Amino acid sequence: MDVLESVLAVQERTSKWVREGKSIGFVPTMGYLHEGHEQLIKEAREENDKVILSIFVNPLQFGENEDLDKYPRDNEHDQHVAESLGVDMVFLPTENTMYPDPLSVKLTVARRADVLCGKSRPGHFEGVVTVLTKLFNICQPTKVYFGMKDAQQVAVVDALLTDFNFPIRLVKVPTVREDDGLAKSSRNVNLTPTEREEAPAIQEALQYGQTLVKNGERSAEKVKDATRKFLDSRTHGKIDYIELLSYPELEPVTNINQPVILAVAVFYEKARLIDNVVLKSDGTVEIG
Amino acid sequence: MDVLESVLAVQERTSKWVREGKSIGFVPTMGYLHEGHEQLIKEAREENDKVILSIFVNPLQFGENEDLDKYPRDNEHDQHVAESLGVDMVFLPTENTMYPDPLSVKLTVARRADVLCGKSRPGHFEGVVTVLTKLFNICQPTKVYFGMKDAQQVAVVDALLTDFNFPIRLVKVPTVREDDGLAKSSRNVNLTPTEREEAPAIQEALQYGQTLVKNGERSAEKVKDATRKFLDSRTHGKIDYIELLSYPELEPVTNINQPVILAVAVFYEKARLIDNVVLKSDGTVEIG
Repeated sequence: MDVLESVLAVQERTSKWVREGKSIGFVPTMGYLHEGHEQLIKEAREENDKVILSIFVNPLQFGENEDLDKYPRDNEHDQHVAESLGVDMVFLPTENTMYPDPLSVKLTVARRADVLCGKSRPGHFEGVVTVLTKLFNICQPTKVYFGMKDAQQVAVVDALLTDFNFPIRLVKVPTVREDDGLAKSSRNVNLTPTEREEAPAIQEALQYGQTLVKNGERSAEKVKDATRKFLDSRTHGKIDYIELLSYPELEPVTNINQPVILAVAVFYEKARLIDNVVLKSDGTVEIG
Repeated sequence: MDVLESVLAVQERTSKWVREGKSIGFVPTMGYLHEGHEQLIKEAREENDKVILSIFVNPLQFGENEDLDKYPRDNEHDQHVAESLGVDMVFLPTENTMYPDPLSVKLTVARRADVLCGKSRPGHFEGVVTVLTKLFNICQPTKVYFGMKDAQQVAVVDALLTDFNFPIRLVKVPTVREDDGLAKSSRNVNLTPTEREEAPAIQEALQYGQTLVKNGERSAEKVKDATRKFLDSRTHGKIDYIELLSYPELEPVTNINQPVILAVAVFYEKARLIDNVVLKSDGTVEIG
C-alpha cells in the first residue's frame, strides 16, 4: 500500500491506472476511521481493481465556531485499517497541498444544503463540494463511496456529480448499525449508560414512521408528528429536528408520493446523534 | 467524424479512448468557426491521438442585455471545417442536454473576472467556467486549447484548472493575425474601409508599449499612458480601455517585475476590437 502526499504523484498513478483500464474505487474521509468507513472500503474493495482512501481534515467545511483543531486524528491507526482492508493507495495531503493559494473559482450549493444538518452549518457543504471536486480530479475514480448515515451529504454529492457531469458513479452504502439498531458513530461513546440504552429508540421511531407510510399514510405532517411522539416517549434526549423531505432533492413534501427521507437528530448530554431512512412512496426502503 | 449530441454517448466514447491510452485534444467553441478556431484545431490535431470539437452557444455566459438569440450559427459550415481538419468527434449538445435541470451547485469566479472585458459582463465568466467544467467531465481531455486573443478567458480557465486540480493541460495558442498585424476576428468585417486601415495601429500600439518595457521602463502607468497616446494619434476609434495587469492573476501592477498583460479594447462604429500582448518583466513575449 502506498501513502502519497503529493497531488501530482497521485494523479500520475491514477492516470496510469485509468490508461490501463483499471476501475478505481474511492473512499474520501477525514480519517479517524470507524466501522462505517470500513464498510465503505470493503464495498470499494469488492467492486474495483484499485481502491484509494483519502484522509484529509478539510478546513473549508468547518464553520467558525466548529473546532477544526480538536477534530480527532489517528493516521497510524487509519493506515493500519486501510492496509488490512486491501487499500492500494492512501492519499494523505497537507492543507497546503490542497489549498496552496486562495481559490479564484468557488463552488456554492444553492439547493439541498440549507435543511436538516446544513441549516445550522452555513458554508459546510460548500467546503464539502469544493474538496470533493478537487479529490475527484486528483483520484479520477470510477465509483465513489459514501455512507447513508449522512444522507444529506449523499444528496449534495449526487447533485455535484449530476450538475457537472462527472464520469463517476455514486455508491450509497447503507448505515452500519449496532446489534440493537443504533447507527454506529464515533459519538456513541459519549452517551451515558441510560442514554445508550434509550438511543436505539431513534431507529425504532424511524421504523415506526416507515410503518405508517407502508400502511398508507400519505401526510408528511402526520408521519412526522407520530414519529416525534413515538421518540419523545422513549428517550430523554432533546429532539433537534424530525424532517420528512423529498429525496435526493430535499424539498418540502406535503403528500408522500415520491421517494422521501425521514430524518432525525437528537441532542444527548454530550453527543448529538443523527439517523434517517429513505423510503419509496409505498413505504419500502429506497436506500438502506 | 462522429457528430454526437448526448452526454452519455460522448462519455462512453471518451472513457473508452482514455482506457485505450489515447490522448484527447479538446477545442471548446460556440461555433461559427473562423481562422482562430482553425488554428486551435490544427494544434490539437498535431498533439493528440483524438480531437474533439464542441459547439455549444452557452446561454449561461450571456448577460441579460446580450443578444443570445442573435449569436451567429452555422453548424453545416462548422462540421465541414472540423471534418477537413481531421477532428474525430464533434459534440453538439442542445441546451436541454447541457442544462436539463436548474443547477444545485454553482460556480462563481472571485478573481480575474471583474477586470478588462469582464468588467462590463457580470456573470459572463461564471457561465464560462460552469460550461467548461461540464465539458471537461464529458470530453475528458488530456489537453484543452484556447486562443490568447481572449487572454482573460485563458486566465480564468487557468484558475479553474489549477484550483480544482483538473488533470488537463491548458494550451495557450497565439493570436492569429492578418498580414498587417490586425488580430483576426469575425468582427473585422464590420469595420469601415478607413477603420480597417487604421486598425493595425492596435497591435502597433501594443508593440510600442512592449518596446518601452524592453528598454527598461518599469512604470505600468507610464507604459499605459504612452500606449494610449500612440494609439490615440493613429486611429479615430474610441479607446474602451488600456490596461496593464499581472498575468495570469490579472491584479493591478505598479512596477513591472513579473509577467504582465498589456491589453486594449477599441470601439469602432460597428465593432469593438480587442487585442493584447503578454510580456515577461524584461519585455520579451511570454505568450504570443
